[in-house]
Amino acid sequence: MSHIALLGAGRIGQVHARAIARTPGATLVAVADAFPAAATKLAQDYGAEVRDIDQIAASDDVDAVVICTPTDTHADLIEQFARAGKAVFCEKPVDLSLQRVKDCLNVVQETGAALMIGFNRRFDPHFVALKAAIDDGRIGAVEQVTITSRDPGLPPAEYVKVSGGIFRDMTIHDFDMARFLLDEDIASVFATGAVLVDPAMRDLGDYDTATVVLTTVSGKQATILNSRRAAYGYDQRIEVHGADGMVQAENQRPADIEIATSAGYTKPPLHDFFMTRYTTAYEAELSAFLAALATGGAFSPSGQDGLEALKLAEAALTSAQTGQVVTL
Amino acid sequence: MSHIALLGAGRIGQVHARAIARTPGATLVAVADAFPAAATKLAQDYGAEVRDIDQIAASDDVDAVVICTPTDTHADLIEQFARAGKAVFCEKPVDLSLQRVKDCLNVVQETGAALMIGFNRRFDPHFVALKAAIDDGRIGAVEQVTITSRDPGLPPAEYVKVSGGIFRDMTIHDFDMARFLLDEDIASVFATGAVLVDPAMRDLGDYDTATVVLTTVSGKQATILNSRRAAYGYDQRIEVHGADGMVQAENQRPADIEIATSAGYTKPPLHDFFMTRYTTAYEAELSAFLAALATGGAFSPSGQDGLEALKLAEAALTSAQTGQVVTL
Amino acid sequence: MSHIALLGAGRIGQVHARAIARTPGATLVAVADAFPAAATKLAQDYGAEVRDIDQIAASDDVDAVVICTPTDTHADLIEQFARAGKAVFCEKPVDLSLQRVKDCLNVVQETGAALMIGFNRRFDPHFVALKAAIDDGRIGAVEQVTITSRDPGLPPAEYVKVSGGIFRDMTIHDFDMARFLLDEDIASVFATGAVLVDPAMRDLGDYDTATVVLTTVSGKQATILNSRRAAYGYDQRIEVHGADGMVQAENQRPADIEIATSAGYTKPPLHDFFMTRYTTAYEAELSAFLAALATGGAFSPSGQDGLEALKLAEAALTSAQTGQVVTL
Amino acid sequence: MSHIALLGAGRIGQVHARAIARTPGATLVAVADAFPAAATKLAQDYGAEVRDIDQIAASDDVDAVVICTPTDTHADLIEQFARAGKAVFCEKPVDLSLQRVKDCLNVVQETGAALMIGFNRRFDPHFVALKAAIDDGRIGAVEQVTITSRDPGLPPAEYVKVSGGIFRDMTIHDFDMARFLLDEDIASVFATGAVLVDPAMRDLGDYDTATVVLTTVSGKQATILNSRRAAYGYDQRIEVHGADGMVQAENQRPADIEIATSAGYTKPPLHDFFMTRYTTAYEAELSAFLAALATGGAFSPSGQDGLEALKLAEAALTSAQTGQVVTL
Repeated sequence: MSHIALLGAGRIGQVHARAIARTPGATLVAVADAFPAAATKLAQDYGAEVRDIDQIAASDDVDAVVICTPTDTHADLIEQFARAGKAVFCEKPVDLSLQRVKDCLNVVQETGAALMIGFNRRFDPHFVALKAAIDDGRIGAVEQVTITSRDPGLPPAEYVKVSGGIFRDMTIHDFDMARFLLDEDIASVFATGAVLVDPAMRDLGDYDTATVVLTTVSGKQATILNSRRAAYGYDQRIEVHGADGMVQAENQRPADIEIATSAGYTKPPLHDFFMTRYTTAYEAELSAFLAALATGGAFSPSGQDGLEALKLAEAALTSAQTGQVVTL
Repeated sequence: MSHIALLGAGRIGQVHARAIARTPGATLVAVADAFPAAATKLAQDYGAEVRDIDQIAASDDVDAVVICTPTDTHADLIEQFARAGKAVFCEKPVDLSLQRVKDCLNVVQETGAALMIGFNRRFDPHFVALKAAIDDGRIGAVEQVTITSRDPGLPPAEYVKVSGGIFRDMTIHDFDMARFLLDEDIASVFATGAVLVDPAMRDLGDYDTATVVLTTVSGKQATILNSRRAAYGYDQRIEVHGADGMVQAENQRPADIEIATSAGYTKPPLHDFFMTRYTTAYEAELSAFLAALATGGAFSPSGQDGLEALKLAEAALTSAQTGQVVTL
Repeated sequence: MSHIALLGAGRIGQVHARAIARTPGATLVAVADAFPAAATKLAQDYGAEVRDIDQIAASDDVDAVVICTPTDTHADLIEQFARAGKAVFCEKPVDLSLQRVKDCLNVVQETGAALMIGFNRRFDPHFVALKAAIDDGRIGAVEQVTITSRDPGLPPAEYVKVSGGIFRDMTIHDFDMARFLLDEDIASVFATGAVLVDPAMRDLGDYDTATVVLTTVSGKQATILNSRRAAYGYDQRIEVHGADGMVQAENQRPADIEIATSAGYTKPPLHDFFMTRYTTAYEAELSAFLAALATGGAFSPSGQDGLEALKLAEAALTSAQTGQVVTL
Repeated sequence: MSHIALLGAGRIGQVHARAIARTPGATLVAVADAFPAAATKLAQDYGAEVRDIDQIAASDDVDAVVICTPTDTHADLIEQFARAGKAVFCEKPVDLSLQRVKDCLNVVQETGAALMIGFNRRFDPHFVALKAAIDDGRIGAVEQVTITSRDPGLPPAEYVKVSGGIFRDMTIHDFDMARFLLDEDIASVFATGAVLVDPAMRDLGDYDTATVVLTTVSGKQATILNSRRAAYGYDQRIEVHGADGMVQAENQRPADIEIATSAGYTKPPLHDFFMTRYTTAYEAELSAFLAALATGGAFSPSGQDGLEALKLAEAALTSAQTGQVVTL
């Protein structure tokens, strides 16, 4: 049984608390949050204690921490808990600054701490099956990857301000997925961003609509299609073409029915967002973390994966802002 | 080049005229119809002459006739043209009376005339592919067949009155398809009919909603689901289960797009009826008729196929009316 | 928090134990099984105690029991725990004998005990959405229901022997679903059964392939298509036609990807059986049981629902054996 | 009745000859081809005469020509027939040289000749429905367009040599479609090309795999995904996102069945290439040409459309070769 503490009791913290509760072999011991009420609520719901960060770092009954706090605290917390000898699972990104991430990963390496980064989509069962089909040689050598990722709606302006922008906040998941599927170094990044959803995004210095093309050293191409708006729900699709064929994963639906009337055939909208779309992925992600803890196996995606995805985000931002292709 | 005369210039006659015009190797020579205006219009559209029935029977420049007149004239016309030495393609059914059909087929046999019955669905390319999958052994020995056949709406009362009722008029296509797919003698027929669409059907002594189950001598089962109402268009599906799997043919769509909005994912309705749904089937059917003419091959579906389908229609009607299973 | 005891630690018992573990507000207190090893294993997995039946009946710390023992014990256990004042959730069927079910339900009524029957499919989120679409009037008044239910393979002969036959064991779920969707009294039952999968079924006096048509008092029609064999997985579909349209729920897939190669487009097989297909349904079913317990609301599906489904199974068996329609 | 001459009796010439034969109101009068045998064959198949180019230009019984000759003859022929007072339908592209196209269009303008360019996909009924959905405001203002266009296999090296390269030969259809759907000026073009299918393409100075992103002046984005290889058939899809939703057109299938076995659910491959995939589009395209002829309406897509698509092809080639974004 792994004893886990949760740092951050917000939206994504609740997702992880639920995953812990549903995972055999894991128990939630403690919860910390800057807002005591949030920590108390979550602790009560799952039979855990409220403790502060330092108490958790010093707790003998905690094996691992799951970091769901705001991004600007991630690197400090990773370092603190790495030094405290706890295994660390941290939500993406490690930090918005490449240098800060590198420094943090150095501490992780020095302490020999276990660190896994929360790229949850790698654990979605359908994407897992897609990756397995590629690895099994079903479509031959990968040539083109297309990732569609559309949020149902804009995040609050307050969130956008500290998010690091669409590429670091949203596309970063797609960069990780592209790397995961291409399995080859990226040579160049092209990105174009626009403000088509809400003019307020322009004032915030961000984009709400973006298209990114990654080209690998051998010429493989990955396209990422992003928007902060999708009227029909959280749109998450992957399509991979190889020498011998294609594999794709379509969207999942909470109510998979079809109604046919004189207006045509209608299916209900998609999941409303990641909390419901990736429920199974979050559980599988936690299980992978626990399995690595238990077996001493590799923690994947690693801190380095987090760093590489952030590098691509930086390059995409530069490309979009300059209108030029960025060579890595 | 086969020279063809068309008997009957109504709705289905127009469908066949168009098929003839689009088929290399066929030319429409003459058109007959009880309504001269209809014959004239069709003849002009396709560069043919208006002639009356007897003229056509006596025409040296006519190799074959396509009979699209009202049902109660079919048997007489088949006999007349069989005796005139013309190849005959006749729309289903040959007649509403089993005995009349048998007598007619005797004449056909005596004259050695060529006769093909218009079960157009056997020629739909998707159903052809479905049948080929079965014949290729892709699903093993057939065990269960399900045929969904729903008209978009009720025919006019005038038509219903002379149609012979839903089983002889509409389900007859499905009986033929079930026989075609089961490829085994039917041992018993169960049918239940209801008036759920329009109470006027009750006064006409007909049903508008029906479910039929055919059981073969070895226990194979075919289910036919009929309705005279389908708000979303002309619903035509087939599903066949065998020892090793299943093959199905879904509906076809004139505009195969999907629109996703906050209301969900919507596809436009199906084809509005058989004239547009089975365009390709009607052309392929005519080509098969012409090919048999040219090669001296077998005409299929045959008059016997028409007879067997009618027998099943009779049995279904008896079953629905008595509430009992009819053993053949 | 509801404290639950599980009677029966076999396949379906494990499904329910998992559901209990994943449901907030429920805790598994005790497990009983005729095979001590099975009970011990399950109890250990979920942190519960092994107790025998009588101990559980006498346990003050048990609010409710979930009965997953062999069918021939169900009625006795329901009576025992009804008398012991425990809420009872029992897997279908209550008994293979109609009379025994009636007697048992009398005891339940006399004791005022809570009883819910395990027709899990009513709780599948997709079927729930389908039912909601009907209840919301999206398709108008229901006219035809088609339920496809195919097991991936034959159960062991030992199981078949005591199962009561395909109609009482397998189709019973479909009878319940048909009743649930038609919401009208059934007037007649037609069934045809065959042995197409394995001749051994004939020696066991059972069928492995069946088609059933239910007709309601107003002429609505429900068709059930069953087979004990489906090479492509556990096939569970529902389609409902109404005056204004149609609603359908297609199959769910554990790995919802599509691979396109020169061989065509291929999706992996369906779920392998009910344990994985209906995972969410089993959790929702338990939640409904707990909610009824907590709120004093109605337990649904009720014992009466179990009785009505069994009546339809009996009628279907009679119909298949006699070759006649059975009027209720 | 429009009297048409066909210039070029090769593969695409045959497609157009068939379309003419199947279109009411059109008749094929004459065929010209550098290979007399090809012209003779096609003329015989469709009841037309063989004439040479100059004879056709001088023919009083020819209203319009359909140009299907090699690309390097297009501009000369357009000019010759424009001056001869014939309406001209010409396959894309007008020429590989932008300047030559401009000169040719000047001649067309001076002569007042009718000219329509063969961007057949605009006439596919499914893409027509997609465009209509956009124009009807179903998805709001267009924001992102994704066009997937994959040929089943590489063309012969001889063809590639004179094709002008993938962007001018293949992507040009997608450029036209993107323009058609975006309905806004393109501001910049990014393209990345690779040789992943056949190293021989490198020697030919061409790419076989490409991704292109077009950005409009207001920031709308169109992505084109191309490959000269698709094991599963001719892959032709469009997806358009707008402020209020999305519309997509999926692939069409010649045999639209699904076979489910223990290996999963399999659909046959797509159409093998454009001749079968776009049969209906070619007929509708010809009908539009004839309708414009008959009514004096606008010929669309126009010569200018051909020029604009070629400009985008040039820009894409420059982008791919330089690794830089090209601003228009």
